[in-house]
Amino acid sequence: MASSSAAARPAGVYPTKVRIVEVGPRDGLQNESAEFSTQTRIELVRRLLDCGLKAVEAGSFVSPRWVPKMADTGILLEHFDRSDRDHLAVLVPNLRGLEAAIESGATEIAVFGAASETFSAKNINCSIAESLERFRPVCSRALAEGLRVRGYVSCVLGCPYEGDVDPDRVADVSEQLIKMGCYEVSLGDTIGTGTPLKAVALIRRVTEVVPVTQLAVHFHDTYGQALVNIFAALGEGISVIDSSVAGLGGCPYAPGAAGNVATEDVIYMLDGMGIQHGIDFDRLLDTAGFILNALDKQPVSRVSTARLAKAKS
Amino acid sequence: MASSSAAARPAGVYPTKVRIVEVGPRDGLQNESAEFSTQTRIELVRRLLDCGLKAVEAGSFVSPRWVPKMADTGILLEHFDRSDRDHLAVLVPNLRGLEAAIESGATEIAVFGAASETFSAKNINCSIAESLERFRPVCSRALAEGLRVRGYVSCVLGCPYEGDVDPDRVADVSEQLIKMGCYEVSLGDTIGTGTPLKAVALIRRVTEVVPVTQLAVHFHDTYGQALVNIFAALGEGISVIDSSVAGLGGCPYAPGAAGNVATEDVIYMLDGMGIQHGIDFDRLLDTAGFILNALDKQPVSRVSTARLAKAKS
Repeated sequence: MASSSAAARPAGVYPTKVRIVEVGPRDGLQNESAEFSTQTRIELVRRLLDCGLKAVEAGSFVSPRWVPKMADTGILLEHFDRSDRDHLAVLVPNLRGLEAAIESGATEIAVFGAASETFSAKNINCSIAESLERFRPVCSRALAEGLRVRGYVSCVLGCPYEGDVDPDRVADVSEQLIKMGCYEVSLGDTIGTGTPLKAVALIRRVTEVVPVTQLAVHFHDTYGQALVNIFAALGEGISVIDSSVAGLGGCPYAPGAAGNVATEDVIYMLDGMGIQHGIDFDRLLDTAGFILNALDKQPVSRVSTARLAKAKS
Repeated sequence: MASSSAAARPAGVYPTKVRIVEVGPRDGLQNESAEFSTQTRIELVRRLLDCGLKAVEAGSFVSPRWVPKMADTGILLEHFDRSDRDHLAVLVPNLRGLEAAIESGATEIAVFGAASETFSAKNINCSIAESLERFRPVCSRALAEGLRVRGYVSCVLGCPYEGDVDPDRVADVSEQLIKMGCYEVSLGDTIGTGTPLKAVALIRRVTEVVPVTQLAVHFHDTYGQALVNIFAALGEGISVIDSSVAGLGGCPYAPGAAGNVATEDVIYMLDGMGIQHGIDFDRLLDTAGFILNALDKQPVSRVSTARLAKAKS
């Protein structure tokens, strides 16, 4: 049966191997209410690299006035040697942030755009067009310095202010980021309102202008839809998945609700599907335990919750 | 990529309409540690019917020595008139239970089998073959009395004692239950270890002997896989889904972990997919709030958690 069902499915529709982009140390911790030390964040990144993760979003060079929790990103980077830094990325909003990132030995930066005008205005205080114009010199300078540049597009399946978002707009912003030199664009369902067939329709629209090999998905589990959306995306040929260890992050638009999909929940599904990811699952669960303990937080991840429950029983 | 994968997907693979079988009042409450009154359970069933649910697992006629929390199922049934009772089902383990169910005016019963010998031995104290022999007279008598009979098969994607479960065994037990007169068999991933492609392979195997129109799926969210498994099952033509309001139930094998998939999380996905279900979503969320409040419990459902978070913020 297994073989015939495999035959019934279009060959190669599911990737045999995926790349996980771990966003816990930046996107995750930035949105946690609990305090944590620079040492804790450094230890988290170290442990994540030891799990076998090859792409970790380690911090940002945004003004400390806006994001005090990431103010020590320079110090963090300096704790890692070049071979480790090759696996770390930092968010930069502008040229000043880029210079600081270069100064600290960053090898990859990320620029953060939006597919919703209202979200862009409230989140980065400018229109979508203005944000893209701001990213252009950042990208050229970064590329000239030999850094890799990754692009993010937020609100791809819904906006907290506008509601539905036009897939054409997502496709347009994604295409412009690729043309600026981003090696990959991550499609972010910032408020987690996406559902699988909407995710499929979006990916099919965006892949009309950006090759699927240059797209990643970044789903939030606010309404429990993250894994099913990831599964649907894998069926469209997507092979890069953003996730956050222990589901760190939460939802800024519904404090207390789930945010980033938990890396361990994604890995559980990938293992069940026989898809390679190169991550040590037990070490990942220990790393989730480490940061939850440091934040004195209960897991939002179903897998980590079940593991904790079994340990107690 | 987009068009080719679209062409590869069989047309109309997703049902336009599904039937939700709400199991909160029995499978859910039975596995909750908190105490609750008969009145609370009656009120829960009443509210669920008011949400538009047409199939509610209301209780069981198992010996009170084994399941004291369901001892008042007769009293519960007597609170509903015939037209309401037409939408309620009760679990019965044997002929004695069936007589009590008939006495109380039940219109539908459910028999509970397993696909794992060890689970069957520990859960109902007999072999799978013995359990099926025990169900045979129960089914004939129930059918003779004009009752509907639904069959459950537990451990279809994993056993807490044996680990992997052979899909051939699941297909065999399902086929026998249908031959006994069950109008439908619900495939239960009792410990939630199933993942989407395993669910697809299982359904394809079982549908070799049982029409897909006579199959339902009953997934647990212990490892966060329930919704993605349901999505995969819908893609195979399954159109009946068991779920539990507020995710009532938990996991007996990992106390504190998630159990039954939450009805509201399923409805959120179905709405996003444009699949009809006939349930009033707002009333359902209020009903989840009612029972969580009665049990003094925090929601495991992502949707109910997000709703609670938004109400607080």
